[in-house]
Amino acid sequence: MDDTHISLAHGNGGRCMRELIETLFARHLGNPLLDLRTDAAALPPLDGELMVTTDGFTVEPLEFPGGTIGSLAVHGTVNDLAVSGAVPHYLALSAFIEEGFEIKLLERIVVSMAAAARDANVAVVAGDTKVVRRGEGGGLYLSITGIGVRKKNLRLGLQHVKDGDAILVSGPVGDHGIAVMLAREQFGLHGKLLSDAASVLPLTQALLLLDGLRFMRDPTRGGLATVMHEISHASKMQVRLNQLAIPVRDEVFAVCEMLGYDPLYLACEGRVVAIVSEAQADEALNCWRALPQGEQAALIGSVKAGRAEVVLETELGGERILPELEDDPLPRIC
Amino acid sequence: MDDTHISLAHGNGGRCMRELIETLFARHLGNPLLDLRTDAAALPPLDGELMVTTDGFTVEPLEFPGGTIGSLAVHGTVNDLAVSGAVPHYLALSAFIEEGFEIKLLERIVVSMAAAARDANVAVVAGDTKVVRRGEGGGLYLSITGIGVRKKNLRLGLQHVKDGDAILVSGPVGDHGIAVMLAREQFGLHGKLLSDAASVLPLTQALLLLDGLRFMRDPTRGGLATVMHEISHASKMQVRLNQLAIPVRDEVFAVCEMLGYDPLYLACEGRVVAIVSEAQADEALNCWRALPQGEQAALIGSVKAGRAEVVLETELGGERILPELEDDPLPRIC
Repeated sequence: MDDTHISLAHGNGGRCMRELIETLFARHLGNPLLDLRTDAAALPPLDGELMVTTDGFTVEPLEFPGGTIGSLAVHGTVNDLAVSGAVPHYLALSAFIEEGFEIKLLERIVVSMAAAARDANVAVVAGDTKVVRRGEGGGLYLSITGIGVRKKNLRLGLQHVKDGDAILVSGPVGDHGIAVMLAREQFGLHGKLLSDAASVLPLTQALLLLDGLRFMRDPTRGGLATVMHEISHASKMQVRLNQLAIPVRDEVFAVCEMLGYDPLYLACEGRVVAIVSEAQADEALNCWRALPQGEQAALIGSVKAGRAEVVLETELGGERILPELEDDPLPRIC
Repeated sequence: MDDTHISLAHGNGGRCMRELIETLFARHLGNPLLDLRTDAAALPPLDGELMVTTDGFTVEPLEFPGGTIGSLAVHGTVNDLAVSGAVPHYLALSAFIEEGFEIKLLERIVVSMAAAARDANVAVVAGDTKVVRRGEGGGLYLSITGIGVRKKNLRLGLQHVKDGDAILVSGPVGDHGIAVMLAREQFGLHGKLLSDAASVLPLTQALLLLDGLRFMRDPTRGGLATVMHEISHASKMQVRLNQLAIPVRDEVFAVCEMLGYDPLYLACEGRVVAIVSEAQADEALNCWRALPQGEQAALIGSVKAGRAEVVLETELGGERILPELEDDPLPRIC
């Protein structure tokens, strides 16, 4: 394929599209289950409860320190399955590419996607590309559906949350949000911060051994605070967070201070929030801290009977109600 | 929800997004398996070989005679599973909505999607919405992944095509392409033609009873001619089409004549191309003609040993090589 940029012909179902798919997508993502000649992929039998998730990705810029929209999309999908207690197996990829998109950039993105898929041990089994006219897309949008399986009769979900349960986070929050923001360079700020984007599967699998595990979620769009609101909303209980206990990197804190962001509302792409029975909180924390991804895991709060709201116990000993997110602090972050 | 148009806040993971999803998507697409509070949907056990497909949709205009991007997306996904010999069960929906999009239009699209899903007996089990900034999307892009099952050990695929096999099409070609084109009104043309967008499941299920069935495909992007090239490309044989036998509606033919399009390259969204053994060609045709969707089904050609190309036997008794599609005759058609 000699073209340097995507044209409408790369999306019309004809020769150019076939070449793009063969020489770029299939070359990097190919595996025995990905058959370009079929309309649907036939999957080997899976043992366990079948789990499905889907997610769209619109991050800007498309490459940022620690990842690309491609690796982000794979990790995000893998993580949605992981926090549901599942082991991810298969991905289906749909790409909307804007006319004029640089093919070398597309290739770097697909290569990073392939690396993330290998890392998480998942195979891309189906794909589709559409080319949209110049000015009608943001460069590249990806949508990924993930399929996995989990142990049958797993009791995991917000309906199992009880008064007194402990809330844990697996690592510092806001890294992804700030890394992407710095990559935009729109505030004249630069930094060495990497996105936390990664598979959380080792973290979620470690906690599944605990019968006191109630619920897990990855705090992406809307950040930690938004997950806390979901917990409070669904359990009709109060979520109490201890500000001093919430891990935030110095760089993240500094940028937030400067620009007026709150790290609790910034997207993470490689962290897990878990709710665990009070009795097993320490055990869960130790499980996580024994893993490289969980060295900075922390017990950050608890769920209490009471008014359904999110209360932050501040470092000064006061209390602050964390509001639900209204306006996006940083659009197109994941 | 009081807003009339989509804002960035509808995509940020907070309250506005939750309300949009609850009052619009879940209200129309809701079913016992769609749980808004989970990251991944748990599916009941399926019996048979698991099949997966994914497709992106970018049609313009978003509403056209006979459908919307929503019904088109459901039908398109259902049809990719159907032509693979599967019965579709579940859909996962990802939407990219442009800031400023009219919420009433979004609702009409979701309503038509729900009707198409009911019609095809499939449930939307997972979903995601992203809002992209004004000027960075074409209004609405949808990506749908479909999951279904088919009988184990089904021998269906281009590798089974043999010299002498018959090629059938289930109805007139090009209706969808021309209906969408007319809806754009860019040529000052108007017409009453409806898109053929529909589920082809009854058509595909009818043929699965024949052991001479080799392959089925729905001729979408690139139309009938592009499927013929796929057949020739994969089988390394010649595809011979009889122009007089290919059903094309008068309105489609007239518009094509006027504007210089070839109906063989226009998208269909409710037709099936099937390859069947010569011996069972008549039986297959009768199966289709007994169905309301297949009344105009026709035997349009055959596969022959020889140079891998697509030959059209013209009405004047001549022969013409059908080239592979290079430029899109009508972009954003499906």
